[in-house]
Amino acid sequence: MKIMSGTVLLSAAAGTMVGSLCLWAQRGDPVVPFPDGYRRWAHVKSTVVGPGSAAFAGERGIHHFYANEKALNGYRSGAFPDGSVLVDDLLETKESAGITTEGPRRRLAVMVKDRQRFGEAGGWGFEVFKGDGREATLGTETKAACFACHKNGRDSVFSELRP
Amino acid sequence: MKIMSGTVLLSAAAGTMVGSLCLWAQRGDPVVPFPDGYRRWAHVKSTVVGPGSAAFAGERGIHHFYANEKALNGYRSGAFPDGSVLVDDLLETKESAGITTEGPRRRLAVMVKDRQRFGEAGGWGFEVFKGDGREATLGTETKAACFACHKNGRDSVFSELRP
Repeated sequence: MKIMSGTVLLSAAAGTMVGSLCLWAQRGDPVVPFPDGYRRWAHVKSTVVGPGSAAFAGERGIHHFYANEKALNGYRSGAFPDGSVLVDDLLETKESAGITTEGPRRRLAVMVKDRQRFGEAGGWGFEVFKGDGREATLGTETKAACFACHKNGRDSVFSELRP
Repeated sequence: MKIMSGTVLLSAAAGTMVGSLCLWAQRGDPVVPFPDGYRRWAHVKSTVVGPGSAAFAGERGIHHFYANEKALNGYRSGAFPDGSVLVDDLLETKESAGITTEGPRRRLAVMVKDRQRFGEAGGWGFEVFKGDGREATLGTETKAACFACHKNGRDSVFSELRP
């Protein structure tokens, strides 16, 4: 009976915790997870941001864009289906004797299409993971800034799939 | 009977043709085919060859390296199994306002591992397709030059798979 009381207490406590987490999740932004396995996805294209760019401080390095299977269909049709995931993998660059090679990862930016969860941002969720980390870093305002620019793209996407 | 004779003649002629083709194939280099579907393979890494490089004339542009599934195992183990295919996809680059973007394809170089067919070159067959073409362009001497340099790599491969 004592054990049962304990179990009831634990269940009650767990129930309160779950309730709080749900409330928090409702109040916070929907989560955009780290895109596991993206290094085996299709390589869309690459761009190098050099010292002559106005965006050098924030965007310097080599950007590799990757797309999962659903996003590949989006590039073809112009409308990205739910489940589409796009990655902008940004690496430091180093130059030696005229050859530019890749350095450590600066950050990984990701876009996930889910019209139900991210309806206010054209159906896209945005997130950034710094370095090789897997911890989400974007606040609500920064995510809004992502969309404020991306909404000018084709279904909020700027890149095009290189043949 | 006449028809049968005709058939026999045709068969004999076909036999001679097949024999000639086999003889030609034995005398010539084993064929390295165009790597269909490589744009969906894993992206290994990228390198940009700029004006400061001694190799600029021949190698200028952005090099994207791709590997099929078997070659991915080779990067992990250090020994590439038969059936491994590696691609060096070389594109022109153009720079504007400090941003370097991709231009047309300059050429596509491919390495295919098949120890039986390419035993004399460390098990690797080499080929180059110019522009967006699918016509093999390398002569026997150039293929030998490919291997003369590549044999200094790890199982004749210089690139490493970026995590």
